[in-house]
Amino acid sequence: MKLRIGIIGLGRIGKIHYNNIMQRLPEAEVTQVAELRRDGLPTDLPFVEIDELIDNPDIDAVIICSPTDTHADFVERCARAGKNVFCEKPLDLSLHRIRQTLQVVQETGIKLMLGFNRRFDPNFLKLRSLVEEGKMGEVQLVKITSRDPGPPPLAYLKSSGGMFLDMTIHDFDMARYMMGKEVVQVYAEAAALLGGEIEEAGDIDTAVVTLKFEDGSMAVIDNSRKAVYGYDQRVEVFGAAGMAKVDNNTPDNHQYFNEEGAQASLPLNFFMDRYTESYLTEMEAFIRACKDDVAVPVAGEDGLQAARIAVAALQSVREGKPIQL
Amino acid sequence: MKLRIGIIGLGRIGKIHYNNIMQRLPEAEVTQVAELRRDGLPTDLPFVEIDELIDNPDIDAVIICSPTDTHADFVERCARAGKNVFCEKPLDLSLHRIRQTLQVVQETGIKLMLGFNRRFDPNFLKLRSLVEEGKMGEVQLVKITSRDPGPPPLAYLKSSGGMFLDMTIHDFDMARYMMGKEVVQVYAEAAALLGGEIEEAGDIDTAVVTLKFEDGSMAVIDNSRKAVYGYDQRVEVFGAAGMAKVDNNTPDNHQYFNEEGAQASLPLNFFMDRYTESYLTEMEAFIRACKDDVAVPVAGEDGLQAARIAVAALQSVREGKPIQL
Amino acid sequence: MKLRIGIIGLGRIGKIHYNNIMQRLPEAEVTQVAELRRDGLPTDLPFVEIDELIDNPDIDAVIICSPTDTHADFVERCARAGKNVFCEKPLDLSLHRIRQTLQVVQETGIKLMLGFNRRFDPNFLKLRSLVEEGKMGEVQLVKITSRDPGPPPLAYLKSSGGMFLDMTIHDFDMARYMMGKEVVQVYAEAAALLGGEIEEAGDIDTAVVTLKFEDGSMAVIDNSRKAVYGYDQRVEVFGAAGMAKVDNNTPDNHQYFNEEGAQASLPLNFFMDRYTESYLTEMEAFIRACKDDVAVPVAGEDGLQAARIAVAALQSVREGKPIQL
Amino acid sequence: MKLRIGIIGLGRIGKIHYNNIMQRLPEAEVTQVAELRRDGLPTDLPFVEIDELIDNPDIDAVIICSPTDTHADFVERCARAGKNVFCEKPLDLSLHRIRQTLQVVQETGIKLMLGFNRRFDPNFLKLRSLVEEGKMGEVQLVKITSRDPGPPPLAYLKSSGGMFLDMTIHDFDMARYMMGKEVVQVYAEAAALLGGEIEEAGDIDTAVVTLKFEDGSMAVIDNSRKAVYGYDQRVEVFGAAGMAKVDNNTPDNHQYFNEEGAQASLPLNFFMDRYTESYLTEMEAFIRACKDDVAVPVAGEDGLQAARIAVAALQSVREGKPIQL
Repeated sequence: MKLRIGIIGLGRIGKIHYNNIMQRLPEAEVTQVAELRRDGLPTDLPFVEIDELIDNPDIDAVIICSPTDTHADFVERCARAGKNVFCEKPLDLSLHRIRQTLQVVQETGIKLMLGFNRRFDPNFLKLRSLVEEGKMGEVQLVKITSRDPGPPPLAYLKSSGGMFLDMTIHDFDMARYMMGKEVVQVYAEAAALLGGEIEEAGDIDTAVVTLKFEDGSMAVIDNSRKAVYGYDQRVEVFGAAGMAKVDNNTPDNHQYFNEEGAQASLPLNFFMDRYTESYLTEMEAFIRACKDDVAVPVAGEDGLQAARIAVAALQSVREGKPIQL
Repeated sequence: MKLRIGIIGLGRIGKIHYNNIMQRLPEAEVTQVAELRRDGLPTDLPFVEIDELIDNPDIDAVIICSPTDTHADFVERCARAGKNVFCEKPLDLSLHRIRQTLQVVQETGIKLMLGFNRRFDPNFLKLRSLVEEGKMGEVQLVKITSRDPGPPPLAYLKSSGGMFLDMTIHDFDMARYMMGKEVVQVYAEAAALLGGEIEEAGDIDTAVVTLKFEDGSMAVIDNSRKAVYGYDQRVEVFGAAGMAKVDNNTPDNHQYFNEEGAQASLPLNFFMDRYTESYLTEMEAFIRACKDDVAVPVAGEDGLQAARIAVAALQSVREGKPIQL
Repeated sequence: MKLRIGIIGLGRIGKIHYNNIMQRLPEAEVTQVAELRRDGLPTDLPFVEIDELIDNPDIDAVIICSPTDTHADFVERCARAGKNVFCEKPLDLSLHRIRQTLQVVQETGIKLMLGFNRRFDPNFLKLRSLVEEGKMGEVQLVKITSRDPGPPPLAYLKSSGGMFLDMTIHDFDMARYMMGKEVVQVYAEAAALLGGEIEEAGDIDTAVVTLKFEDGSMAVIDNSRKAVYGYDQRVEVFGAAGMAKVDNNTPDNHQYFNEEGAQASLPLNFFMDRYTESYLTEMEAFIRACKDDVAVPVAGEDGLQAARIAVAALQSVREGKPIQL
Repeated sequence: MKLRIGIIGLGRIGKIHYNNIMQRLPEAEVTQVAELRRDGLPTDLPFVEIDELIDNPDIDAVIICSPTDTHADFVERCARAGKNVFCEKPLDLSLHRIRQTLQVVQETGIKLMLGFNRRFDPNFLKLRSLVEEGKMGEVQLVKITSRDPGPPPLAYLKSSGGMFLDMTIHDFDMARYMMGKEVVQVYAEAAALLGGEIEEAGDIDTAVVTLKFEDGSMAVIDNSRKAVYGYDQRVEVFGAAGMAKVDNNTPDNHQYFNEEGAQASLPLNFFMDRYTESYLTEMEAFIRACKDDVAVPVAGEDGLQAARIAVAALQSVREGKPIQL
């Protein structure tokens, strides 16, 4: 029998999950959808109110893709209704609120999976599998480059919690995922080099963050809100026995040579193109965890840890010193 | 209204088209399927007999994925029933039979599209678009490497028409597609270097084929039925103003370095993985041509020309000399 | 007339300069050499005592390749003797001593060039020229990976001044060179992850150093004393208008594919192979500056700045906080 | 004691050998030079007449870099004078004349090495060593791309013997070298696609040549006299156990990314830059063979075989059919 899924929020990400489930994941189906703004959406979707969806006994699991400030609330309500939940990151901008929600999750015994989709990207999966196979030996350094093609709209920026909680949080999760260890110290150097709206909003657009792990190993993340050449997502892992790295994906692998030089295609420019596979694989993993009643691969605790690092990074910038976790 | 499609033959390729249409091409739907061997197929598929499918007035177009020796017959029957047809290559192993079929297609005025899916691969599309934009100037040479990971089963080999008509035919089409010109001469050097079954079956497994075009430009194709490192599909175009080439696709782009050397992933090993996108895009093109009533991008004539070259290549091997077309 | 050069110290680096001048730089010649340990050196070299070399009126310029703790002294003596000087880095392990020496250099008006040879590597020259042409726009971040194939002997380590003054100093210079700006703050995270001798010697072997420049732009350097796959020297420059990076050089560019995967050659493993060209080009630049009486491309001040950053990095590790310069 | 070498002909190639020996090959020295056109050459070179050089008992070996039509004559005179000879390719444009000369070489027992320098290029050496180590298994196909950045002057073209004997002869040698087997059949397709002078001179500028070896394995060579993007020299070897290929060398390995695309450097454009190392290594090999009295790595027979293939290729074009050797 198919897993019956309700989706709360049918914006950009909600639609990705909807289509993946309906078209490519035969083990599940979306049976209800809650979305306030239905302009431009097909009218034949099974729309319901949020409460109805959460309380519906014929829904097995809920995917939460609504705005960040609703995440914690919806997760708790779903948990109390006994639904397994897949929630987009972050759980909340407040560590206190996240901890409250995780408490509810634990009490109710539901499964909560966080949407750190990049863990499921074929490149990063390969890198992690090399680490797990011991190909790198003891890992000494993880390097993550993560640059967006352009900054989000000001309205989004203002409610985003700032670059670390909105954007770098993916990289904090990636560092923990690659290392398989916990971060004990964070130092962040950041600036608003693009000027304009971002600076006025009190946010930053460029950062270098150094993480120290329990055993002295390190990670370094560099971020920019704007790379003119596109969406730049690279990871390198260096260890006692070897080094491995993954590069960006491109729409094709052509090389063109003329008098001017050698030319090639830019990286895939849009996160939905870059991470097409990862969204599919993560949802497949969630569905499998629900159906087989096994642990989800990205737990609520992972969301908490990434958020803790993000908050510490912000504190590091403000206080101009490394922060202990 | 969706284009209503019937599929004849639900083997490996038939299933690809079925799934692409049902899951990813909302402009069409498969309403009937004809397949003699239904073992292992879902029982809830809309199976009918072939005649019923062809004669069904509620079917707009037919996809033919049955064995090669049925293609010409089914195309003709569909044509007479007024259906547009998408047919896997080759139309037939006999040039005479192909010409007969194209005659029927012409008389009935239906659309016939041939399954030269590689034209729709993102890499080759990019290469062709560079040619069309004039980036290569006058094209002087096209180079195609096309190697299979391993030979097909003997039974398949025996009814395949030989390597040129079965495998190289894709490359002959690719050469014509890249050049946008007609071949006037073929010289083929070939051998059964793998020995065993292929040699006993009187077939070849390794070849270098040189094509000459109307204007003196050339193409060279190298084939092998067995590349131990996987499915090798590369194309290069060289012209007066530049050169461009495309390489294989890999499952990920990791590089791993240890004392032994630098290592990376092999090419995608299976034609269905390598050409996932091309199968989708070609079917989308067929559906669009049917719905908008415009010309198909790969016509029956393209099938005839590729087959003519294949037959000439075989003759060249047998007679040990170049063959004029 | 050829520039007449004396070399003090004919160890590994001294020999490189000797051979480059005698074989490949016809504008100059080595007329005297001072070296205490002459075992294994050709007996027909023009050996003299250090004093004789420095005081020789027929010597136009002196190359100093003796141990670090003699650099400042020899530079000053050469300066007072009116010789132009090329000195290997670092000038000294003490900033105070460096400043004294630069004072003497300034008073005597000689030319002093520091041996930051990597600036002359074809890859890094290309990167710098892209920055100068404005191809990156305003530079926001420089990333430097610098890993040695293995740690130096313990004896060397003990007198080296530690990893930052011995090894990272090249990277500090590279960051300044690429940016064309001064560093105002340093934060270094470091550890002795290899254990053993290095840890016992109180030194570190792994580090991530973040630099902040006057205008808020940043650099990040990651170092290791031991990369099992060889000598790893890569630089990336990211700016408002573009990004450029250079990779390692390899002894050949072959790719080999078999069932196991795709394989390629490791980076050139030895600094003298990796930087063959840069040693030649830097010496050519020194000779030209002497003969044409123009400014040297790497001045004593560059040595001071790099050493200041190195000392600050060490202080940052000790105090666990960023250090202002 | 140093090997005493005389050079006949101090044009472009002669100068390369002169400089390599004098600057980088301490086991030998050039003691005499014969060159009719001394304009622009240093006047302090040890110039003598050709006869004097050949008859000089204090010369151990002679390097012949004079025009092609003098090669056979000078080789024979050197042979009769008992000198070992290094001769640039080809030995002669006439197979008959080459055979005569080899007869004299054999009778006199001197060493004759042919200047197929590309065998000594680090990339091709690596490829050959992979073949020798059995990494490719039984080799089934060698692919060679060889394109010049631009055609030579008309005067040169006219006395060159045509593209096959002048340019492709290097590739014929490379095919034999990689395979370690003899060619039994040649088929060449060629054209003058560049038009102009080359066509008027009755020569060709573009060709695809297919070679068949004793055991049915094959090689395919594609040539052009003009590649706008530079000097293109690539080789691929495909066998039962694997495939390996080498690409062009570039002046640096930078990659630059902006809105327009990803850009990189073109191949080294000039044969003297591309093959710098190979000229040095081949001369080192010749000197070693002379001094140790062992066989030269590229024998006169290799010159004969390459020339035989070139002559057959030309015949193939003229007669429009494959030629048996």
